[in-house]
Amino acid sequence: MKLIRYGEPNQEKTGVLIDDVAYDTSAFGEDYNERFFENDGLNRLREFVKKNEGNLERIPEGSRLSSPFARPSKIVCIGLNYADHARETNAKVPTEPVLFFKSTTALVGPNDDVVIPKNSVKTDWEVELAFVIGKKASYVSEEEAMDYVAGYCLHNDVSEREFQLERGGTWDKGKGCDTFAPMGPFLATKDEIADIDNLRLWLKVNGVMMQDGNTSNFIFKIPHLVSYLSQFMTLLPGDVVSTGTPAGVGLGFDPPVYLKPGDEMELGIEGLGTSKQYVKAYAKN
Amino acid sequence: MKLIRYGEPNQEKTGVLIDDVAYDTSAFGEDYNERFFENDGLNRLREFVKKNEGNLERIPEGSRLSSPFARPSKIVCIGLNYADHARETNAKVPTEPVLFFKSTTALVGPNDDVVIPKNSVKTDWEVELAFVIGKKASYVSEEEAMDYVAGYCLHNDVSEREFQLERGGTWDKGKGCDTFAPMGPFLATKDEIADIDNLRLWLKVNGVMMQDGNTSNFIFKIPHLVSYLSQFMTLLPGDVVSTGTPAGVGLGFDPPVYLKPGDEMELGIEGLGTSKQYVKAYAKN
Repeated sequence: MKLIRYGEPNQEKTGVLIDDVAYDTSAFGEDYNERFFENDGLNRLREFVKKNEGNLERIPEGSRLSSPFARPSKIVCIGLNYADHARETNAKVPTEPVLFFKSTTALVGPNDDVVIPKNSVKTDWEVELAFVIGKKASYVSEEEAMDYVAGYCLHNDVSEREFQLERGGTWDKGKGCDTFAPMGPFLATKDEIADIDNLRLWLKVNGVMMQDGNTSNFIFKIPHLVSYLSQFMTLLPGDVVSTGTPAGVGLGFDPPVYLKPGDEMELGIEGLGTSKQYVKAYAKN
Repeated sequence: MKLIRYGEPNQEKTGVLIDDVAYDTSAFGEDYNERFFENDGLNRLREFVKKNEGNLERIPEGSRLSSPFARPSKIVCIGLNYADHARETNAKVPTEPVLFFKSTTALVGPNDDVVIPKNSVKTDWEVELAFVIGKKASYVSEEEAMDYVAGYCLHNDVSEREFQLERGGTWDKGKGCDTFAPMGPFLATKDEIADIDNLRLWLKVNGVMMQDGNTSNFIFKIPHLVSYLSQFMTLLPGDVVSTGTPAGVGLGFDPPVYLKPGDEMELGIEGLGTSKQYVKAYAKN
């Protein structure tokens, strides 16, 4: 199953993709949020869709796509999870997962604009595979870890490198600016992806391929990440974990290359769709 | 006004303290959450209490106190905001605020048990003054910053030093374990505190005074913190910011001293009450 959300910000409705056609599931009566995942929402939604197939209304063409899930309790990110990306940023290949948080206010739809923050000169891109937690996870073993995963989603972990690396303290400062987490186009349930450890993922800026990697190069695979994170904090249903980016980010160039207003990012992961964001300067509303 | 929440976990009811007596405000009909703060809840609650004074029911003696606000969208913490604490941990005095996140699943009541995580040998204490955001804050100036603060609260920023400092990556790993954020006893609105920059704060372990500081020693004061954070992320109504701890944490001793099962922490801030937590070993439920 492929879950989507659509409509104007803060008025999102839910839907599903069936054979690439988007149908509304508002009649299901629940947003795709913590409570939905906690209460077996995926299975109940599947039943609902089966029962109502043929009667579901098509979503109007040109609708804005939102993040395919409601705001989670947290977005946890894994740093340096591809050896080639660790090398390009002059970081050591980690011996255990590096983690940081993105403020959940960064969440936007897959094709929304990315806004360069005020006073930013080093806004950068990062195509990533994110996964969504399906049930409360605390001290989970690697063997049982996949039972706690609801599905997968394309994510651009937009990052401000000066804020992240040169302003003192943790990376969190450069990761959670508004619009820094375009998610989607859809959330794919686990059964949609035959081999999560062998998916091409790529990102182009202004049509030029900058990142072109494969999840086969994960240093730490998803079961390890779920188990590892759950030793340090409880993961709640609907929480999002982003698994790191392959080589090819702006920071990795010599000299580095950063985003500027008018740029266009396009990214994708095999089986998880594509997204496109235009880059805008900050302007007070 | 002093806001409290009480009752069993996930069944909390709301209340207020009037002249140190706790009254139920369930009839107000709203939890103290993001929506409450966003929709002028403090003023409406004040009106409600005034109108119903004399008719409010007392909260039963011995009720468990919960965090005085519902789970926020984020808990942001400031590191090393007292020069004496920076020195004791061999860290440089920061030239701009250090920030990190606590997973919001760490939130517990002021007198709930603190659980030492599995495999932890370095669980430590940190008495802190936390403040709660009253309205959405993005690119706020220092001059207007206090308009965005709803009130203040006592917080024990419990920390696992090995997870925080020796496990690779950011501090976030050692800050968000379950029970690592006892908050309360109450949320005091701004008008309750005459001078937020001159409050004694202290923490005892097993009756021995370990931390005894004063907010007059903040390196970065609250208006600066609000303004600074709001340059990097949007702060939402109900979000919590913890302002750092003074000297006297376990990590600062030579050799360091850490918590063990059976220990008792007691802490307080002038005008913001006291809290007490017993330390327990992790046990699978």
